[in-house]
Amino acid sequence: MIGIKSIASYVPVAGLDNYAQGAKFGKDEEFILGKIGSAFLPRKEAAQETSDLCVEAVNALFANNPELKREAIDVLIVVTQNGDEEGLPHTAAIVQDKLGLPTSLAAFDISLGCSGYVYGIYAIKGFMEAAGLKNGLLVTADPYSKIVDPEDRNTTMLFGDAATATWLGEDAPWQLGKAKFGTDGSGAAHLKVSDGVFFMNGRQVFNFALLKVPAHLHELLGESGLQPEDIDAFCIHQGSAAIVDAVARRFEDNPEKFIKDMVETGNTVSSSIPLLLEKHMFDSSWKRVALSGFGVGLSWGSAIIYRA
Amino acid sequence: MIGIKSIASYVPVAGLDNYAQGAKFGKDEEFILGKIGSAFLPRKEAAQETSDLCVEAVNALFANNPELKREAIDVLIVVTQNGDEEGLPHTAAIVQDKLGLPTSLAAFDISLGCSGYVYGIYAIKGFMEAAGLKNGLLVTADPYSKIVDPEDRNTTMLFGDAATATWLGEDAPWQLGKAKFGTDGSGAAHLKVSDGVFFMNGRQVFNFALLKVPAHLHELLGESGLQPEDIDAFCIHQGSAAIVDAVARRFEDNPEKFIKDMVETGNTVSSSIPLLLEKHMFDSSWKRVALSGFGVGLSWGSAIIYRA
Repeated sequence: MIGIKSIASYVPVAGLDNYAQGAKFGKDEEFILGKIGSAFLPRKEAAQETSDLCVEAVNALFANNPELKREAIDVLIVVTQNGDEEGLPHTAAIVQDKLGLPTSLAAFDISLGCSGYVYGIYAIKGFMEAAGLKNGLLVTADPYSKIVDPEDRNTTMLFGDAATATWLGEDAPWQLGKAKFGTDGSGAAHLKVSDGVFFMNGRQVFNFALLKVPAHLHELLGESGLQPEDIDAFCIHQGSAAIVDAVARRFEDNPEKFIKDMVETGNTVSSSIPLLLEKHMFDSSWKRVALSGFGVGLSWGSAIIYRA
Repeated sequence: MIGIKSIASYVPVAGLDNYAQGAKFGKDEEFILGKIGSAFLPRKEAAQETSDLCVEAVNALFANNPELKREAIDVLIVVTQNGDEEGLPHTAAIVQDKLGLPTSLAAFDISLGCSGYVYGIYAIKGFMEAAGLKNGLLVTADPYSKIVDPEDRNTTMLFGDAATATWLGEDAPWQLGKAKFGTDGSGAAHLKVSDGVFFMNGRQVFNFALLKVPAHLHELLGESGLQPEDIDAFCIHQGSAAIVDAVARRFEDNPEKFIKDMVETGNTVSSSIPLLLEKHMFDSSWKRVALSGFGVGLSWGSAIIYRA
């Protein structure tokens, strides 16, 4: 069974002091830390392309896993909605070249936002099993600094740039359990880009997440024959401190099991869940973790992963 | 096992007389039919969005398969590099809403060009099996009329707009066999969009396809323990009449088994292979078909499908 073997990441060192940015919009430190959740927002350099963030994350994965040779990689999927080029070619092809991965590589991009990691792990595992592949890289990189207007108070205090790389293969310490997905395109206009600039209706997105995510997690647990106490940690998309807190409270049982860790990263879109897993899961005593991503589309996905 | 149950398509009725267009560039009918391969190039209406083409193709699929209820659809993947919006949201979410598919739908876009259908059937089958889903729609829609410069003689005589919808599920008449994939991002610049306009280095793309595709098909057959005579038909991407003919001749055995059918469609990118399958495969006596898609990325994928 194909599972999650290792996760690495790249978070730019440079970035914005979010307290200073908040002050510009009349927001105090309590708001920035308590509601937004992030004191610092990493920002890629202007010359760094999305593929460069991917390359950094994959190189970190190679450094952590010297037994993983680039010649052994047979599939690369990049989850992004802010790729290098205008529509085509796909960013995964550019990453193949920059990393010197073999040309026998299967490579494509998946277009999803904050739900992208949950979809992505099932997409790559499924593709590998359907096509008989052995070693896959799922890369997330959606640098919103390319599209966020620094004068838009609804978005500029929220998003941070980052990339992650997940190695999937056999003999993995973490396996994928049951998953559930959802899509509601009637809310597509709540998160979109027009003329190169990102727009978010934060109130609508907050309400959607609060309505959808706790119920979705309860349904997933119910269909899996699990109780909330069977889950050691809930690693949900870090949209903002306020949404993580609100979902945790609405879920009712053990809100303290909802991991919140975005002070130094901001909302990193599809990278937020793998950043949590990289940092908190592998060295933990956790046996079973619930994931939930939600955002652009509108789109959501929840899954249970468990220690092999 | 998840396989291919049915394929439907949408090809706009309006379009360009390619003989007239050829005359403008000093190309005679022999060139247009013999080298380009298309007397007519379908063109969507200006107001039709990519999602509208998807909707038309899926509605044709529903009309052909009255037993398929929209409430039963649990995953929708759209293969496109020319979606409705700028990067986000993904087109699949918009299609979910326009078609009134259930919000329990898993939906995302895959960014691939002319190799997209071969990748796509393994991506959706794998995702369905990994996530336990029952009825999937793989939709291709990449209307190049959005990006082709009508004054660019290298591209404007080649591409046609179309969309296809493939229903995948259990008890399917066609199953997926072995597949092989490839990616060479060092050729990314040969097919790309800059400032909204598509550029293609036709000579480079032709040489790449001629070098890569026959060898890739031979490798796939060899690894499958099959001989060319075991394949009833080769349905490869209809890039142009010249490339289909050249690949067929280079492949050597039975070039007449390479299906060529693009007179009324042009190069429809990721829709070209499913258009061939829809028209020629289901009512045939074929038992085993080889597919190969190649283009943007550079990216290629070949697969064998067989009658259950």
